[in-house]
Amino acid sequence: MTYGIVGTGAIGGFYGGILAKNGHDVHFLFNSEYNAAVEHGLIVNSVKGNFVINPINAYNSVDSMPKCDVILVALKTTMQKRIVDMIRPLLKEDSAVVLLQNGLGMEAELAEVLPSTVSIGGGMAFICSNRVAPATINHLDYGSLIVGVESGNPMKIQKFCTNINEGGIECEFVEDLNFYRWRKLVWNIPYNGMTVVLNTTTDKLMQNPASRQLVYDIMLEVLQGADACGAHISQDFADRMMDMTDAMKPYNPSMKLDYDNNRPMEIEYMYSNPIKAAAKCGVELKKIKVLEQQLRFISSVQKS
Amino acid sequence: MTYGIVGTGAIGGFYGGILAKNGHDVHFLFNSEYNAAVEHGLIVNSVKGNFVINPINAYNSVDSMPKCDVILVALKTTMQKRIVDMIRPLLKEDSAVVLLQNGLGMEAELAEVLPSTVSIGGGMAFICSNRVAPATINHLDYGSLIVGVESGNPMKIQKFCTNINEGGIECEFVEDLNFYRWRKLVWNIPYNGMTVVLNTTTDKLMQNPASRQLVYDIMLEVLQGADACGAHISQDFADRMMDMTDAMKPYNPSMKLDYDNNRPMEIEYMYSNPIKAAAKCGVELKKIKVLEQQLRFISSVQKS
Repeated sequence: MTYGIVGTGAIGGFYGGILAKNGHDVHFLFNSEYNAAVEHGLIVNSVKGNFVINPINAYNSVDSMPKCDVILVALKTTMQKRIVDMIRPLLKEDSAVVLLQNGLGMEAELAEVLPSTVSIGGGMAFICSNRVAPATINHLDYGSLIVGVESGNPMKIQKFCTNINEGGIECEFVEDLNFYRWRKLVWNIPYNGMTVVLNTTTDKLMQNPASRQLVYDIMLEVLQGADACGAHISQDFADRMMDMTDAMKPYNPSMKLDYDNNRPMEIEYMYSNPIKAAAKCGVELKKIKVLEQQLRFISSVQKS
Repeated sequence: MTYGIVGTGAIGGFYGGILAKNGHDVHFLFNSEYNAAVEHGLIVNSVKGNFVINPINAYNSVDSMPKCDVILVALKTTMQKRIVDMIRPLLKEDSAVVLLQNGLGMEAELAEVLPSTVSIGGGMAFICSNRVAPATINHLDYGSLIVGVESGNPMKIQKFCTNINEGGIECEFVEDLNFYRWRKLVWNIPYNGMTVVLNTTTDKLMQNPASRQLVYDIMLEVLQGADACGAHISQDFADRMMDMTDAMKPYNPSMKLDYDNNRPMEIEYMYSNPIKAAAKCGVELKKIKVLEQQLRFISSVQKS
């Protein structure tokens, strides 16, 4: 199987790197970091062992890339409008596209516009990793992947998951993508938005009783939305997310990093889509709506 | 009638100044600005005409003040725990205490601990005024007062209202204090909290579609709480508050000024009390609760 990595950042670079390290035929799309990749390869400083992919199949345009069996999309959802055009040149008739992104509704949107012979899946990465220099990634903690199918033949997506496992990184193939998409939002929705709106880190949110309660209240609201949309997540999972965050070092979620670095924030897929989905299922996510509106305001006054 | 002004700031100084200018026997309590008051009097730069109260009955302790017929309390509710002890030495058997404060539940709290012969009222000031230097107030716009009674004989409170009217400033005496306390919250709750949380001014909140909608959503939630607690405010009033704010110059609400100047914020009486009151009346103010929790967090990281 050939792999195409569309977006070689902290996520795409890590999982693509794991595949390449294990001998798979992986083709990496870079943007401004293309020259650095060609020069020194893809450097992965990982708690599980450092490695470098050098030489590397690096590209600075999809037009020069080969068609691939599995295309891993690890670009922010803020680029979603352009992603279809980026992956189209990489598609075989029976390719699989796996979206390693955060949020809700990305796969369904893609399935509507791609040929039905192409299978669409989603992946949830549970990982602390950062891009620290051009074509250089620090993998700090965790790393497991959950992968599921939105539409089409699951075979290539299962195979991808197997390949990740063979690379020493846990990958679980699951039946109910919707459930896991919602489940990941239980952490993402409170911490991403609140660290931006309150300009702080996860540990500070957990220390103050009021913000801690707000984090939990918002988790419970995600659970309500999920439940209405057929994803039954137990309250115990929210409790575990609280415990996990208590145990984490002070952390800046991805949206906080985007905000601090003056990049667009993933408001649409992480907030607006879950709010819309829940509304369709008859539940109004009132507290999350407040966060969304605040983030929209903050986004509008970001330096451009 | 003798007047005691407990808290000679932007509000107490203005209305006390209006009374003193009109020949009433007014006694002003100052804190750190006592020396300035003795030196140059109370300076009021007002759109309705500048004036100075000099000489002035100025005090730096309630213990040296005479007992008064009407005590106007114009201290922030962040000092509420100390206010009872401050006004006790000023009370005659049949004094009236009028709380010129923002929030909900201040009068009921005071009525519980003061003798039942003392009448308790509340005043809502619709005024743009700022303390710009020691014992110096700038009155920029508006100025009208609405006064109502919580408990006891209304006579002295009505008389106070008449005296304000005689000073050329509109004062309306109303029957239903609860209604007007809630009605004032329709503006105060969204704009105070949101300018602090989003670190902005009223005009910016109104310009962005998302924050504008959030302002309005929160106004409607205040209306829901008010309605459940017997204060029927029409949606038309919220629309008028939006129009009024559109017409205002860029404005920093009092809580934003408190935050910017590193003073405690009036979270308890402006947010927690309305939330508790509405909950008792069977309505959960979910969006306002988010704001309250965010403000509590921000308050906890304020420099002290």
